[in-house]
Amino acid sequence: MSKILVIGHRNPDTDTDAIGAAIGLASLEAALGSDVEAVALGRPSLETAFALEHFGLDAPRVIETAAPSDVMLVDHNERQQSVADITDVTVLKVIDHHRIANFETAAPLYVRVEPVGCTCTILTRMYAENGVDIPRAEAGIMLSAIISDTLLFNSPTCTDADRAAAAELAAIAGVDVDEYGDALLRAGTALGDDPASTIIGRDSKSFAMGPKTVRVSQLTTVDSAEVLDRRDEFFAAMTAEKDAAGYDLYLLLITDVIACDSDLLVVGEPVTAVEQALGVTVADGHAFGKGVVSRKKQIVPQLTEVLDV
Amino acid sequence: MSKILVIGHRNPDTDTDAIGAAIGLASLEAALGSDVEAVALGRPSLETAFALEHFGLDAPRVIETAAPSDVMLVDHNERQQSVADITDVTVLKVIDHHRIANFETAAPLYVRVEPVGCTCTILTRMYAENGVDIPRAEAGIMLSAIISDTLLFNSPTCTDADRAAAAELAAIAGVDVDEYGDALLRAGTALGDDPASTIIGRDSKSFAMGPKTVRVSQLTTVDSAEVLDRRDEFFAAMTAEKDAAGYDLYLLLITDVIACDSDLLVVGEPVTAVEQALGVTVADGHAFGKGVVSRKKQIVPQLTEVLDV
Repeated sequence: MSKILVIGHRNPDTDTDAIGAAIGLASLEAALGSDVEAVALGRPSLETAFALEHFGLDAPRVIETAAPSDVMLVDHNERQQSVADITDVTVLKVIDHHRIANFETAAPLYVRVEPVGCTCTILTRMYAENGVDIPRAEAGIMLSAIISDTLLFNSPTCTDADRAAAAELAAIAGVDVDEYGDALLRAGTALGDDPASTIIGRDSKSFAMGPKTVRVSQLTTVDSAEVLDRRDEFFAAMTAEKDAAGYDLYLLLITDVIACDSDLLVVGEPVTAVEQALGVTVADGHAFGKGVVSRKKQIVPQLTEVLDV
Repeated sequence: MSKILVIGHRNPDTDTDAIGAAIGLASLEAALGSDVEAVALGRPSLETAFALEHFGLDAPRVIETAAPSDVMLVDHNERQQSVADITDVTVLKVIDHHRIANFETAAPLYVRVEPVGCTCTILTRMYAENGVDIPRAEAGIMLSAIISDTLLFNSPTCTDADRAAAAELAAIAGVDVDEYGDALLRAGTALGDDPASTIIGRDSKSFAMGPKTVRVSQLTTVDSAEVLDRRDEFFAAMTAEKDAAGYDLYLLLITDVIACDSDLLVVGEPVTAVEQALGVTVADGHAFGKGVVSRKKQIVPQLTEVLDV
């Protein structure tokens, strides 16, 4: 019998939750007697690498396909965000905090989805419900996931449950949340020497919205001007990827983690749907999203509503 | 703001869980401060009516559509099993123990699905997790749902969690599980004076399996011979409904709740898929399913596997 694989979404370099929740659930399942391994669908981001290093954890093994193993999914459920052969394997569990779509099973399974800011918040409860102590390193990476997903509690996706879980995890991990959180978020904002095509791929998700396929990428920064200076490079990379993959519409959120606003770059059509959904004006492919920091809560539902006619 | 409606699946006269879980979740949500109402998509079965009467509960109000209310779904998630306008309303929660299919939301929500025998088993845990005491009548109807879904713990869908929840609920409800369970199951097996077309409609579900639409009805009995004596009447009713609704295949499970086997009547095509999926021989539209009592665990996954090519 193969080990059960615990898998976060594609592009794990989007946030720390994909890898943090995989490590967190795998540790819980192992404590409960299952033969499991946390794996990933890509390399960790600079932010996640910082967190793993800080708590002495190795990056999970990167896989391309899961068969013949059964799988548990964390931080996603939509099949286009999952492992390539997801339709060929048995999904035993899903722990997630996103909408449910493009997900189907042949048999009953265990699903725990809650409208909180981070999968690791749900996992923190599950450890308690099962009477399992969270090891220090796992508490550290799970805390990092909550800080990452909620932008240190500044995102509108953040709930009281996230704050409570983070406080509990910080005590176990032995770190000061604000100090550690600031260092973590700054570690993740470096553009580095990567070309625009690599940078937009770090945190990218595709969504079917009515008849349209929409790609939404997000990058976080402490210096929006630095990113916008390279806007032509980003437009070119977005257009190339849109054409190659057949997306109708491609949005890039450039989120300032200090100001908690986002600049938005748009290529493809219908641009009017973006304006209508978000209440912004797009000029030369650019719009400013006052207070917009969450793709999941402030972009996807609104755009789905407009496009899913 | 309209009350939130807590809704079980169509054909609530299939089992007691659709109505029992709606009452159980509504009572928990009310205790936690939400403005909710348990409703139903049809009249209770003889079995459910027996349980409601026994514990002094009224049958939930029957609704046709839910808008403009938000909804919470219990004991189902597939849209074709839900309220007619399910795609027009916001689903806030799903508590269920079935496979996930044909379910999609625009925004994050709360989902709790576990591979246990009954939704009310999950609800029993949720009361405990939230520190809410279960009132006696609610404990009684939730216990009835577990007895109904697990055929008094004889179904292969029954888990240790179902047995533990039932014991806890029986203590609160103040009944002997075996004695009450036997009375409950017998109350539900009476064919009565209804025509075959009504009887097969009591517990019917439709499933998309690959290119085929399959209808699977189930009735429970303590006297299979009595039902099989009327087989021509059942074949005629099944064929009429298949043709009217455009089903490809129609299966009727006649489940003996004492012997824990099922006779199976089949109309439509492909019959060979039924034989292959269930390992039975269909002769003159009839097969015998040794040990088959669960549509969800012993029919739907196997038939989906064969038809979903």
